[in-house]
Amino acid sequence: MARHVLVLAAGRGTRMKSDLPKVLHRVAGQAMVRWVLDAVAALDADTTTVVVGHGADAVTAILPEGVGTALQADQLGTGHAALVGLSAVDWAPGDTVVVVYGDTPLLEGGTLVTLAEAREAGGADVVVLAAEAPDPDRYGRVVRRVDGAFDRIVEHADATEAELAIREVNSGMYAFEAAFLAAALPRLGTGNAQGEYYLPDICNHAAGPAGSVVVAAMPFDEMAGVNTHAELAEAGARRRRHILARWMDAGVSVEDPSTTYVDVGVTLAAGVTLRPGTHLRGATSVGPGTEVGPDTTIVDSQVGAGSLVWYSVVRGAEIGDGVEVGPFASLRPGTVLAAGAKAGTFVETKNTVVGPGSKVPHLSYLGDATLGRDVNIGAGTITCNYDGVDKHPTEIGDGAFIGSDTMLVAPLRIGAGAVTGAGSTITRDVPDAALAVERSPQKDLPGYGDKLAARRDAKHRRGGDT
Amino acid sequence: MARHVLVLAAGRGTRMKSDLPKVLHRVAGQAMVRWVLDAVAALDADTTTVVVGHGADAVTAILPEGVGTALQADQLGTGHAALVGLSAVDWAPGDTVVVVYGDTPLLEGGTLVTLAEAREAGGADVVVLAAEAPDPDRYGRVVRRVDGAFDRIVEHADATEAELAIREVNSGMYAFEAAFLAAALPRLGTGNAQGEYYLPDICNHAAGPAGSVVVAAMPFDEMAGVNTHAELAEAGARRRRHILARWMDAGVSVEDPSTTYVDVGVTLAAGVTLRPGTHLRGATSVGPGTEVGPDTTIVDSQVGAGSLVWYSVVRGAEIGDGVEVGPFASLRPGTVLAAGAKAGTFVETKNTVVGPGSKVPHLSYLGDATLGRDVNIGAGTITCNYDGVDKHPTEIGDGAFIGSDTMLVAPLRIGAGAVTGAGSTITRDVPDAALAVERSPQKDLPGYGDKLAARRDAKHRRGGDT
Amino acid sequence: MARHVLVLAAGRGTRMKSDLPKVLHRVAGQAMVRWVLDAVAALDADTTTVVVGHGADAVTAILPEGVGTALQADQLGTGHAALVGLSAVDWAPGDTVVVVYGDTPLLEGGTLVTLAEAREAGGADVVVLAAEAPDPDRYGRVVRRVDGAFDRIVEHADATEAELAIREVNSGMYAFEAAFLAAALPRLGTGNAQGEYYLPDICNHAAGPAGSVVVAAMPFDEMAGVNTHAELAEAGARRRRHILARWMDAGVSVEDPSTTYVDVGVTLAAGVTLRPGTHLRGATSVGPGTEVGPDTTIVDSQVGAGSLVWYSVVRGAEIGDGVEVGPFASLRPGTVLAAGAKAGTFVETKNTVVGPGSKVPHLSYLGDATLGRDVNIGAGTITCNYDGVDKHPTEIGDGAFIGSDTMLVAPLRIGAGAVTGAGSTITRDVPDAALAVERSPQKDLPGYGDKLAARRDAKHRRGGDT
Repeated sequence: MARHVLVLAAGRGTRMKSDLPKVLHRVAGQAMVRWVLDAVAALDADTTTVVVGHGADAVTAILPEGVGTALQADQLGTGHAALVGLSAVDWAPGDTVVVVYGDTPLLEGGTLVTLAEAREAGGADVVVLAAEAPDPDRYGRVVRRVDGAFDRIVEHADATEAELAIREVNSGMYAFEAAFLAAALPRLGTGNAQGEYYLPDICNHAAGPAGSVVVAAMPFDEMAGVNTHAELAEAGARRRRHILARWMDAGVSVEDPSTTYVDVGVTLAAGVTLRPGTHLRGATSVGPGTEVGPDTTIVDSQVGAGSLVWYSVVRGAEIGDGVEVGPFASLRPGTVLAAGAKAGTFVETKNTVVGPGSKVPHLSYLGDATLGRDVNIGAGTITCNYDGVDKHPTEIGDGAFIGSDTMLVAPLRIGAGAVTGAGSTITRDVPDAALAVERSPQKDLPGYGDKLAARRDAKHRRGGDT
Repeated sequence: MARHVLVLAAGRGTRMKSDLPKVLHRVAGQAMVRWVLDAVAALDADTTTVVVGHGADAVTAILPEGVGTALQADQLGTGHAALVGLSAVDWAPGDTVVVVYGDTPLLEGGTLVTLAEAREAGGADVVVLAAEAPDPDRYGRVVRRVDGAFDRIVEHADATEAELAIREVNSGMYAFEAAFLAAALPRLGTGNAQGEYYLPDICNHAAGPAGSVVVAAMPFDEMAGVNTHAELAEAGARRRRHILARWMDAGVSVEDPSTTYVDVGVTLAAGVTLRPGTHLRGATSVGPGTEVGPDTTIVDSQVGAGSLVWYSVVRGAEIGDGVEVGPFASLRPGTVLAAGAKAGTFVETKNTVVGPGSKVPHLSYLGDATLGRDVNIGAGTITCNYDGVDKHPTEIGDGAFIGSDTMLVAPLRIGAGAVTGAGSTITRDVPDAALAVERSPQKDLPGYGDKLAARRDAKHRRGGDT
Repeated sequence: MARHVLVLAAGRGTRMKSDLPKVLHRVAGQAMVRWVLDAVAALDADTTTVVVGHGADAVTAILPEGVGTALQADQLGTGHAALVGLSAVDWAPGDTVVVVYGDTPLLEGGTLVTLAEAREAGGADVVVLAAEAPDPDRYGRVVRRVDGAFDRIVEHADATEAELAIREVNSGMYAFEAAFLAAALPRLGTGNAQGEYYLPDICNHAAGPAGSVVVAAMPFDEMAGVNTHAELAEAGARRRRHILARWMDAGVSVEDPSTTYVDVGVTLAAGVTLRPGTHLRGATSVGPGTEVGPDTTIVDSQVGAGSLVWYSVVRGAEIGDGVEVGPFASLRPGTVLAAGAKAGTFVETKNTVVGPGSKVPHLSYLGDATLGRDVNIGAGTITCNYDGVDKHPTEIGDGAFIGSDTMLVAPLRIGAGAVTGAGSTITRDVPDAALAVERSPQKDLPGYGDKLAARRDAKHRRGGDT
């Protein structure tokens, strides 16, 4: 009595007006079909098969291990898709086949478990997953007999006034007995409004003997399919609310959940504070007592405890405990900020290690650099790491004091405790504890300012723009 | 049977507590009265007259061509305003006069067409535009006779309990037969709660013979007048939702519509992605596959295809295909970034052309500069374009490599393939393929760092602040 | 007939999973318990006592003057807390004792006045503050007798079906006659579901003679206690809406109230415009006609009239009239920008006065500096204010023109009308009107660029990364 899952995911999603296959559009950090597969995982199924079509290679590329695919070359309807999928499955009579869709990113695993268990417990041919709709609108209605048993599904277009008043609607998701499904699918016709092989027709064909088709209930919110960018945005908002609700329960303080964007793969400690305009993406983690935001993006980065990252963009970085980043910093991949370090205002780093307690307070670019501990980097310091052909490393020893506007022409080593003079271009290694300076004598020309002012005044008198 | 429109727009808007005339407050990128005129345009009217009063010149200044004005020097009520407006119109008996207000920015053109056609089809003296209000609150109620015909409008203050229960409310907008209106307006008195010449009174005077006053229906949402900043914010939110819904239907991906701000005059291609905190203003266009945001403003600029603009401010710029801007760039008017160019982190440009494939990755200011193709600008490079009196141009040839922290003292020409040394101040043109460098010899003073450390330690021991 | 207030604020707030005592979590700029005390202030009470427990010192530290504390060492229930609190109060028979909680930040003063006056007017032993709940959920229900008088409070767990249908719920807040409370509290037992000394039990014990317990009504929204981060976020959103509604009524234009964050202590003039992503915190004021945002934080700063602050972070600064700040500026404490000054793009200031009309347009760091009027600071200018041991001041006289990338090595005085050459490191005072320059001769090496290009091409041919 194995479980098999078919995820129908072949459609183009014409209404998205996008080259991207519909199920690859992202909701809170992952493709829609991945959300569905997350729910499917709760079934612990023997096989999971994604029926792909439009953009088959792209969809296949993002599937997790253990998930198979079947190619539906032509989109001839959901019945056809299920047939293609089932053909790829090694099923046995008595097995349960759950059919879901790749574009329902709000589906939860518990719902699918309920569905599968309803099939397995009662032995029905078909279990229809249905929901009470606040506004049933254009959904197919579940019509029941006087005794409450399933009678049939009636499409919106074919429904009588009385049937239109029914609020129990078909999700389009089912659990089938495998042999029943295998027998029924080839018998589907195209004599329906869609002119397609249409999966719900099976339920109506099947509903002969009482109990052969039963209904399982699900929350209406979970069944929403995404066909438009407006629906995509709405699904994203809901998933983000779920994610944040979970983190708030776990002790994360979120000043404004409606403007905080945390992807599904992010890990947060209790005592984290997220301020508005924060985007946490990819495999990012944030430690206790750390405050992030406002207006900050962190992607694929680890942030320690008791740190502050605000008005900044952080990608592929490791940030230790008690670190300050921003306002207005950009940490690019390969950046490591050790405990107590600082990357302040108008600071960019790339492939750079900033040692414990070292400070890069302002207006600096550090690339391919390794800083020891307690280094102080003056404002305007730049590692000249690219010579037009190759990138070169810069090493700065413990306790070095780099003067403002120092150009560090790599490859270069600044010794421990060394000092550079403001405005110097340093092209040669500096020994430990030495002062390196590159500078000419200052010359003063008296009266130049008066001449400049006179020229400016003259221009003003001529009506010129300054 | 001409159509005339009167837009009553003379009020100060006292509750806004603002010097700005009420109808000039902006909703999603244009003044409220412009939204009303956009709706009026659907009428294809023979004349459109805006009745101005407070701030008449400022209001007149932003009206489109073909729209006339009439000055209501004293605000004596809506009846008086209509009289002033009608006096400026060359109407004929049988013409239709539509009366609307300058402070209803949610009004749609289709609603006005329905109104005008209702008057023209039936020949009524007056057509009252009314809506079903979820909560009729302080609106005037439309009282109907037992046969359903219009009976009268009763103000909230004068209504009986039964009348208060009526949910059909008067929008205050009407279509009149011109001669009827011209005759009725001078007969209006001020014997009402407002003590003003009050336009709705006409309906009650007119409602003698059956059919002389009829009612046309409109959506309640469209009739909202804006009298407070809270209502202004609400109208802005609604218009923004409309605008984004239209773009999402057209294939634009909007991660969070509630934090995305797109003005009415913006043009977006299918396949654009807008991230939270994006503001697109003025005459801006964005090409397919381009991602904008988070936290970005683009004003009056054209952005090509497949580009990325994030955490940046862009004004009056042209951005080509495959261009990267930001994080943290400010492009000011006159900036042109050709295909494949980059203006990266902490980069400001003004009146500057960056040629194809040229990169300005970090910490640079370029003003009045023209860069050829495949130029590389080192971090910290600045065009010294202002000498205290005049601005001067900088030209940089194809393939030039500008070293970090190069000061380019304009007017200046850097030849094709030329190179400048890091930290150099370049005051003289550089020939093609030459290296220009301005630098002194580096001097090293051994032991200086130890003395600095000793002073610092001494201060620490004294308890001083470092 | 004095009034006394007990604010029960001893709980840890376990569900917040935070070290911070629950009542210190902040809502729109102040700790929850401060919101409650703001409401309490309307009572003009003779004594106000906060019952503290978890984090007693931290809570005590933020209480305003005139508010006493009582320490509840063990949390044995609300009845016990009230007993602890009352023991610290010098009450007399006939006095009114109002009991509220430190975690209800939406409570308003008018509600408490209603409560106290209801006690004082009728002489009841107890006045229960109750509200009509849209969804009474798990609240205790107020059961009334057939004549409408108070009968008893029934907890959710003990309620019959009929009682569960009651929508009038107990807020848990009361006004007591002091002697009654003093007598009743020691008699409370722990024989209830909570196993605690439970304050509501008093009401049921008291409700003997008619009129001894009466009910006062309050708005349901105000009674919400905050126990989770989700509730904290919701309370913050509500308080922010209240604050913004008040400022919009006062003439402030708020483009999007849902993304604008204004703390309770901020003062705004009519004619201010707040754009999305604006955070105004602490003791900040903004003058008329000034626009703030998008994406800007201002903390503890004064901003004058007709200024613009956008995409910036401002802390502890004074900004005059007609000043431009940003995009992308960071003003740190001690910054003063006089009228007509500018701190533009990628500009950081700290402990610095920028005189009237002086401009710091781009890429600069000014620390410990004093600029006169009409100074122009070139891009890339840095005050080298820290020598590795001490901070030193920089003075720049009126009308000085600082060339781009000037390093101003402090202590330093630049005279009035003086000029510095681009790229110069200035280490010695510059006399008035003098030009100071530190520069070597520019040298050109022909052909270097061709060799660089050849190396780059060779690397390309080898397939290397550039």
